[in-house]
Amino acid sequence: MGKKILNELITNTKVEIAGAVARLGSEYIGLDIGPIVGNNCNLGIKITSSISEVFESSDVVIDFTTKECMLECLKAAVKFKKPLVSGTTGIEGLNLKEYAAKVPILWSANMSIGVNVLLKLVKEAAKLLGNEYDVEIWEMHHNLKKDSPSGTAIEFGKAVANAAKVDFELNQYSHNNSNIRGKGGIGFAVSRGGGVIGDHSVMFVNSDERVELNHKAIDRTTFARGAVQAAIWLCENKTPGLYSMQDLV
Amino acid sequence: MGKKILNELITNTKVEIAGAVARLGSEYIGLDIGPIVGNNCNLGIKITSSISEVFESSDVVIDFTTKECMLECLKAAVKFKKPLVSGTTGIEGLNLKEYAAKVPILWSANMSIGVNVLLKLVKEAAKLLGNEYDVEIWEMHHNLKKDSPSGTAIEFGKAVANAAKVDFELNQYSHNNSNIRGKGGIGFAVSRGGGVIGDHSVMFVNSDERVELNHKAIDRTTFARGAVQAAIWLCENKTPGLYSMQDLV
Amino acid sequence: MGKKILNELITNTKVEIAGAVARLGSEYIGLDIGPIVGNNCNLGIKITSSISEVFESSDVVIDFTTKECMLECLKAAVKFKKPLVSGTTGIEGLNLKEYAAKVPILWSANMSIGVNVLLKLVKEAAKLLGNEYDVEIWEMHHNLKKDSPSGTAIEFGKAVANAAKVDFELNQYSHNNSNIRGKGGIGFAVSRGGGVIGDHSVMFVNSDERVELNHKAIDRTTFARGAVQAAIWLCENKTPGLYSMQDLV
Amino acid sequence: MGKKILNELITNTKVEIAGAVARLGSEYIGLDIGPIVGNNCNLGIKITSSISEVFESSDVVIDFTTKECMLECLKAAVKFKKPLVSGTTGIEGLNLKEYAAKVPILWSANMSIGVNVLLKLVKEAAKLLGNEYDVEIWEMHHNLKKDSPSGTAIEFGKAVANAAKVDFELNQYSHNNSNIRGKGGIGFAVSRGGGVIGDHSVMFVNSDERVELNHKAIDRTTFARGAVQAAIWLCENKTPGLYSMQDLV
Repeated sequence: MGKKILNELITNTKVEIAGAVARLGSEYIGLDIGPIVGNNCNLGIKITSSISEVFESSDVVIDFTTKECMLECLKAAVKFKKPLVSGTTGIEGLNLKEYAAKVPILWSANMSIGVNVLLKLVKEAAKLLGNEYDVEIWEMHHNLKKDSPSGTAIEFGKAVANAAKVDFELNQYSHNNSNIRGKGGIGFAVSRGGGVIGDHSVMFVNSDERVELNHKAIDRTTFARGAVQAAIWLCENKTPGLYSMQDLV
Repeated sequence: MGKKILNELITNTKVEIAGAVARLGSEYIGLDIGPIVGNNCNLGIKITSSISEVFESSDVVIDFTTKECMLECLKAAVKFKKPLVSGTTGIEGLNLKEYAAKVPILWSANMSIGVNVLLKLVKEAAKLLGNEYDVEIWEMHHNLKKDSPSGTAIEFGKAVANAAKVDFELNQYSHNNSNIRGKGGIGFAVSRGGGVIGDHSVMFVNSDERVELNHKAIDRTTFARGAVQAAIWLCENKTPGLYSMQDLV
Repeated sequence: MGKKILNELITNTKVEIAGAVARLGSEYIGLDIGPIVGNNCNLGIKITSSISEVFESSDVVIDFTTKECMLECLKAAVKFKKPLVSGTTGIEGLNLKEYAAKVPILWSANMSIGVNVLLKLVKEAAKLLGNEYDVEIWEMHHNLKKDSPSGTAIEFGKAVANAAKVDFELNQYSHNNSNIRGKGGIGFAVSRGGGVIGDHSVMFVNSDERVELNHKAIDRTTFARGAVQAAIWLCENKTPGLYSMQDLV
Repeated sequence: MGKKILNELITNTKVEIAGAVARLGSEYIGLDIGPIVGNNCNLGIKITSSISEVFESSDVVIDFTTKECMLECLKAAVKFKKPLVSGTTGIEGLNLKEYAAKVPILWSANMSIGVNVLLKLVKEAAKLLGNEYDVEIWEMHHNLKKDSPSGTAIEFGKAVANAAKVDFELNQYSHNNSNIRGKGGIGFAVSRGGGVIGDHSVMFVNSDERVELNHKAIDRTTFARGAVQAAIWLCENKTPGLYSMQDLV
């Protein structure tokens, strides 16, 4: 993901790379980012292990790391008064609002513009189609994905539950036994295989028609591109606060 | 289609059938609607050939006929001051606005609620995703369909062109030669086969992701159900004017 | 299903209806089949409650009933030496081979020609693609279906396991927890909603490509049509034995 | 494509790289293949501009070039008595059989294993389903693809025509006007957009069901992987002759 973001930053003419950080002990520390992303020549930016250094030299920072590292980024963002874009997952327990009260922070589990536009459309569809349609969500990812259903699929399901004013936890289920589908339930079906980057399908079905809202990732660049767009957006919109990709699209 | 609408009217508890009309010379004239829709018993409504009679006895009339017959319905609607729902196609030349100035008229080429919700979502998606995504529309219908692409596919394409502020006629095309796809074009691909009732897919694609908005008809009842919902809606909303299913969803 | 089969028998010019049986107490007993299937006139065949009567007058019998009733049909088939086509499910415990030793019997859980052709192709694909591809099966049916996954989906899975020479029971699973996909597993994903007649998708996926073999039922007539073709085939192929739709396609 | 093949050769433990050739004047001439494919260290193989050199040092050669260059490869294959795998397209006029009489040559327009397995299944399906099903082919590729429909889609169509014993040229068409679909026709629908690597769908449809055989490329590596498998297969199977991926799968 780091390489994808560097590549996106290099090709996007609206931004300039001020610095790049890798975890302490990484083989990349001290190397120029050029050859790392497959360029023939150096670009004059060396990978550092200092988060502070990068926050100091940048207008905005993008973080795709771990909970621990994101915590350090949050602290640095506040210290250096710089906005932070983060796609780090598994961050239960971090109080983002505390930091977002002081600097602009944008966090989303899925940075793809298309997924976030689809999330808006799913909310709209749930509102327009009402309770007369069964909602089923199917997603497919590569065979190394650990969690199931995907965080994005769950976000789609929560958006539907919210629009239908039902409790998500009580109404989500999967069809792994012989029970008949209940009215108002939100069904999840999951496939895992090969190198599928990520397909999501949200279906609204009644007795005579089917509305399907689908997203298919073609390349992981889609997440990097979204993160860079988020960074640009955050710079233009400096008020402290906790934002998500839903605010951007 | 007449039978599908009768069936929908019979099962829908919010409405009551006041009359039914068939073209002069039809074998159904004089018969009770019960056996016609497969009921074992008569329902007390006989098919008539008089449009006036039906308009006189009803609160609202549903028309799926021909251009000529629809014109008579428009005149009767004005004469008897009754709203009219029409799904009649091939009506170039009829000046609906003239009649809609006096009574409420709802006309749509596709009466399905799902298709019309999707049309709203397509407009929204075109606005949110902007000009960076290629738009491609694919549709499939049964092997007896005469027109191609379907009127509904064209409506989707026009909605996209409108949101992107480009001229639809100049930008729509199909890939039947060796030219490279132009930026901003709206591509149409059409399949015809067997008994497919109607599938539509509107795709927004960039280099790394694909957003697909699909509709799949399961049963033709979907068009009848939409027409009946339109009739109920028109009765609750009596101001004269020209409406479409987009106003309803 | 009875009506669908009657309709198919009436429209198929290669066959003639000799009799029709309904369960004792059915409202249809004694009625002519014409009006039952929506015809305007009688066809000269009255519904009986006697299985023997129907076997006596026919060259072949089609059965879509219950385990108990199918048992009676099996006995009558042997007694009257007439072939039997059956699509009755939930028949665990019936020893079909015992009866098939004396008369030709064709049984299949899914009578659709397309599903059975697809089953052949799935076997072939599993053999050709080998163990390097993850296999995932997704199916969707209407919201009243009780069993999950569908019997047809399980048959697809068993065919793959058989071709890969692995034990089906040990290798089939669904992704309802956080475990990473094991090599050689056959994953099942199930959706239920609205009036979907039946969609099945068998996917073979590796790191860089995806082969999908899909079946989508458009109308339940597909099962009736298959049963009638099976009856014709069974008449032309009179050797006693237990057949399935796989022998026919 | 050269880089993809080098990468595949490096990761595949059954093969070893003996040499690599680029066109005269390429910036890669003289460089080690290691850094070219993103490796940190040299691999001891330098890119040459001499086709002879590579044929001399190798057991089998893979060619993805131009018509002119492929001709030189064919001559070198004969001279050095080495088998040749080629995925070069636009080679009308080259008499492959002349060279294949002396050395084994495998040529295919699409080297993906999955596409070639699907082609086998399409032939089988066309044979099993017979003439009662309408055949429709839909394909989608990125927005820079010049030809339409894709060569692979045309190969699918020809396989169907061949199985149905009809003339392909007379029966292929696209639905770009108002005519009703003819019996026995093979319809083509084409979409182009964004970075779609390649989707193909062959549909067999009758009034009540739909069998779909689909291929979706996830990554261009699929073509490189197929070419390398073809090279291994050709080495194990040394008889001169003209082969295709259909012989391999």
